[in-house]
Amino acid sequence: MRVVVIGGVAAGMSAASQAKRRMKEAEVIVLEKTGDVSYGSCGMPYNLMRLDNPMDELVVLTADDFRNKRGIDVRLFQEARRIDREKKEVEVWDSRENRIYNIGYDKLVIATGARAINLPMEKQINGVFTLRTLEDGKRLKNFIKERKPKKAFLIGAGRIALEIVHALHELEMSIVMVKKRPGRILPQFEEEISEKVEAKLREKGINFISGVEIKGFMEKDGFLKKVVTSEGEFEAELSVISIGVQPNIEVAEKAGIKIGETGAIEVDRYLRTSDRDIFACGDCCEHYHRLLKKPVFSPSGTVANKQGRIAGANAIGANIIYPGVVGTSIFSFFDLTVARTGLVKEEIKEDFVKTVILSQTRGHAYPGSSPIKIVLFSERGTGRLLGAQMIGKEYVWGRINVVAACLYKDFTVDDLSSLDMAYSPPFSPVWDPLLIAANRAKKSI
Amino acid sequence: MRVVVIGGVAAGMSAASQAKRRMKEAEVIVLEKTGDVSYGSCGMPYNLMRLDNPMDELVVLTADDFRNKRGIDVRLFQEARRIDREKKEVEVWDSRENRIYNIGYDKLVIATGARAINLPMEKQINGVFTLRTLEDGKRLKNFIKERKPKKAFLIGAGRIALEIVHALHELEMSIVMVKKRPGRILPQFEEEISEKVEAKLREKGINFISGVEIKGFMEKDGFLKKVVTSEGEFEAELSVISIGVQPNIEVAEKAGIKIGETGAIEVDRYLRTSDRDIFACGDCCEHYHRLLKKPVFSPSGTVANKQGRIAGANAIGANIIYPGVVGTSIFSFFDLTVARTGLVKEEIKEDFVKTVILSQTRGHAYPGSSPIKIVLFSERGTGRLLGAQMIGKEYVWGRINVVAACLYKDFTVDDLSSLDMAYSPPFSPVWDPLLIAANRAKKSI
Repeated sequence: MRVVVIGGVAAGMSAASQAKRRMKEAEVIVLEKTGDVSYGSCGMPYNLMRLDNPMDELVVLTADDFRNKRGIDVRLFQEARRIDREKKEVEVWDSRENRIYNIGYDKLVIATGARAINLPMEKQINGVFTLRTLEDGKRLKNFIKERKPKKAFLIGAGRIALEIVHALHELEMSIVMVKKRPGRILPQFEEEISEKVEAKLREKGINFISGVEIKGFMEKDGFLKKVVTSEGEFEAELSVISIGVQPNIEVAEKAGIKIGETGAIEVDRYLRTSDRDIFACGDCCEHYHRLLKKPVFSPSGTVANKQGRIAGANAIGANIIYPGVVGTSIFSFFDLTVARTGLVKEEIKEDFVKTVILSQTRGHAYPGSSPIKIVLFSERGTGRLLGAQMIGKEYVWGRINVVAACLYKDFTVDDLSSLDMAYSPPFSPVWDPLLIAANRAKKSI
Repeated sequence: MRVVVIGGVAAGMSAASQAKRRMKEAEVIVLEKTGDVSYGSCGMPYNLMRLDNPMDELVVLTADDFRNKRGIDVRLFQEARRIDREKKEVEVWDSRENRIYNIGYDKLVIATGARAINLPMEKQINGVFTLRTLEDGKRLKNFIKERKPKKAFLIGAGRIALEIVHALHELEMSIVMVKKRPGRILPQFEEEISEKVEAKLREKGINFISGVEIKGFMEKDGFLKKVVTSEGEFEAELSVISIGVQPNIEVAEKAGIKIGETGAIEVDRYLRTSDRDIFACGDCCEHYHRLLKKPVFSPSGTVANKQGRIAGANAIGANIIYPGVVGTSIFSFFDLTVARTGLVKEEIKEDFVKTVILSQTRGHAYPGSSPIKIVLFSERGTGRLLGAQMIGKEYVWGRINVVAACLYKDFTVDDLSSLDMAYSPPFSPVWDPLLIAANRAKKSI
């Protein structure tokens, strides 16, 4: 039995490891087109702000670790160019030796990930970056160390854009941040959350402007000098484009594997593609959403790991159902934590109730307490929880995960208000903010 | 309609507030035998370590607040002595005016709480304390401020004993801590957890000895000098007895209200006692345990608040079922957080699997990460979650609450491993420790 895995980051290496662990005698080959495997790309914005720490510390296990400790044949700088589903072969380009060869498979796992969406540019300009692969991270960090830019221009208004802005601010750059569509930052969040993030941007002196279209980048001596926009020109030595990612589906699509409506590779609940011998996992494929009961495109490192494990197991004959996502995400932004789970307003088809509460993170009179704001969506009539959003300086992570657990089994706000949550003054008020929110919601259902 | 509430702390004031809120025209009278209402007694050990902060800051609302803002007739220093269920009257002793009077009720709510278990003592000695009421806290704090004790002797080995030890250590006392039964600290926790707490005691130079019986207290000039034990005499200027609490059931018992097997007042799921017109809530009554499916005695401030609200509502005609506890508790001890939820080993009747994992609190290479240890109990065969225990320096609170939510609806370890938990490097590794524990447990089910 030979399992070939295309892609060696989160999903791919999880798939390879799981297949090999479950079937010692299987030959497991990973084709990775870059020189890096198994790194935590979510850590890049945080790594960036500590200039002395190499990006390589985000590598969890090296290719040699996988070879020697796990018996996996990891092949770096090998790009899968074509899949011949008839012959069950992958055409590989070895970019170091510049040669092409074919490799047969019994089962194939596609874990090609996603890539940063870029702006159309006439040519590559030093100082304009996207941040997706470890290579991107290394290049960006090197640029900052060498050129010591003072003025940064950030394009994007999502979670990762904000993480990067935070890092650049820590590195003492003055920052302009723009988004194309008019309106507030973090548009997928409710205004009660976004306004707190915008206030923090103002507090930090970061100039956020929406409704700005990028016209082009101007260089001087090969280095970025200005960003030209619909709202004028902005001087900048560094610009990072963080406007989302798109799944790497080309090799699958060319092979006639079905692409879903979201634009990512379609998989069933067992992570099998339209070809029974080919699985897909991670950011290149669709993700079943438990609440929407349909696939979404929801790239995430933790989801990629979970899916990889299941795809790898199923590739060698297991029959594990991928449980799906409920839309959970979180990020840290200066001293704030921002998180959501479940549906955002635009996704809600049901007649719903929106509940907003402001509470405290710790017990009455306990030092260090700070405000926490919670938005709950629940279905009118039944009280079924639909989603939550939160912002605060601490204890946001735990509370969003409680709601994520509740969403897994269709809890109502009544259930949420009934939870036996841990109470002690250092961790929560005697009425936990979540219970306050649930009790408030109950009155409007 | 007149609702009389006996006891004005967490459960009592919640019941009174809820009854009044739901029925504006109801006359709601609270009889509190001390001079304090509505305080957060769980905050006392934490308040203790900040000598300049008055204990009174733990009072959430004063009697006047309840009178003026909520229209509740709060009567301080009024002790309910007797209940005449035939006449529906309470006999009250006004301790300030030293007079006895009767007060009629339509519905009665008993919220008499629990009291600290004390050791038999021939006479009261200055320097020997229990810590249960706000009055206890004030007396203890005053004693520490005035006498500046250097040597403390702590009797007890539970959560509150440890919180007090922490406070006394912060106040620079040298501390001996003893428990009667031989064996480890926190015996209701697994050894993997207790050993970490014992290591912290050693690190802080706190002398913990088990198997020590108290023979008596020796005084000099009316102040504590020595504690005499089965293991010898210990010099001490301060001794705190923290060996648990017992429910205040006397007034209910004398009135012929049924006392449960746990020794606390028996209530049905609506918090009604054996008398249809009398409700009970908080630490004086039993608490339905959702996993054991029977009542337990589980005193807790947050549970008291929840029960009070339900008892108050049901007293004026609502029909709300008390959802019950799952055995969640948490406390902070120096830089550690210790928590549990669900069943402890002794409570498990099922054939069970115990899983222990050691992981990290934050993402790979993210600064500030620290170890977190998780113990999971699950039912062999079905994988149904039975309980969890955790210890670590951060993010314990959130994780124990996720399991508490899972226990509410009988999640299995497979469900737990499937949760879409929030991931970002500042908050968790890409595989959350809970998911690691659940995946590990799945292998042994």
